[in-house]
Amino acid sequence: MAQEIERKFLVISDTWKNNVSRRIHYRQGYLCGNAHSSIRVRVSDDAAHLNIKSATPGVRREEFEYPVPLHEAQRMLSVLCEGPLIEKTRHFVEHRGHTWEVDVFEGQNQGLVVAEIELSRDDETFERPDWIGEEVSHDLRYYNTSLVRHPYTRW
Amino acid sequence: MAQEIERKFLVISDTWKNNVSRRIHYRQGYLCGNAHSSIRVRVSDDAAHLNIKSATPGVRREEFEYPVPLHEAQRMLSVLCEGPLIEKTRHFVEHRGHTWEVDVFEGQNQGLVVAEIELSRDDETFERPDWIGEEVSHDLRYYNTSLVRHPYTRW
Repeated sequence: MAQEIERKFLVISDTWKNNVSRRIHYRQGYLCGNAHSSIRVRVSDDAAHLNIKSATPGVRREEFEYPVPLHEAQRMLSVLCEGPLIEKTRHFVEHRGHTWEVDVFEGQNQGLVVAEIELSRDDETFERPDWIGEEVSHDLRYYNTSLVRHPYTRW
Repeated sequence: MAQEIERKFLVISDTWKNNVSRRIHYRQGYLCGNAHSSIRVRVSDDAAHLNIKSATPGVRREEFEYPVPLHEAQRMLSVLCEGPLIEKTRHFVEHRGHTWEVDVFEGQNQGLVVAEIELSRDDETFERPDWIGEEVSHDLRYYNTSLVRHPYTRW
């Protein structure tokens, strides 16, 4: 279990591409979500995880994560998950002592690029790179659970 | 992953109590459920599991189960699960080569006793003990997910 403090921003230019240290492709879906929690199945390049997150809106959420066998995750994605799957490539970008995660979406969410930073305290300060735009941490439309039901290309 | 073929019956007398080989107390809740699947957190006497089941009505369901740390399961039960928790004691009863699981419910489902048998094939034959009544495999009210929302004492 972990408490996750995450802030999410729109990305307004491509200059982050000069500082990518690592990238991972994700294919993920949601088993279901309600007012209390969301349950995600995520397959990355070589691993699969089940992730349970409390649905508290905002930046601070409770999170549980467990590794699962790849073939079981793929079965859950194809048989049990709602709607179209989320496909995106996560780029890790170092900036002044923090690691930003820039998610470039594909498929029905093509065109959407958001950047997240994980903090260890609510009041932790960090420097915003110049490719960062408006903060959308509290905007439900940008939740991955919402992007399944209302993908970006249909906004 | 496993395919589960389970049939569920009402229990019409107490004579099963003479043949109990083992019992386990369960405390369980549901992270959520929808048309596709249900996600259960279950704490038994000394272990905890996360269980994902397809929601196909009837006897054949797809199932995934993963052990989770006890303290994380307890946290999920208290913070993330919907409605009142299900509490029941499962009794294992041997009868003519099959093991029956007799669930005696407590709390808001007190008074409800159901017996389940797990089969390896749809057409597998088994002998019904004389304490078995009507089959309720297809009756949604007896699903544990339903018993959270509409507990037996309020039927």
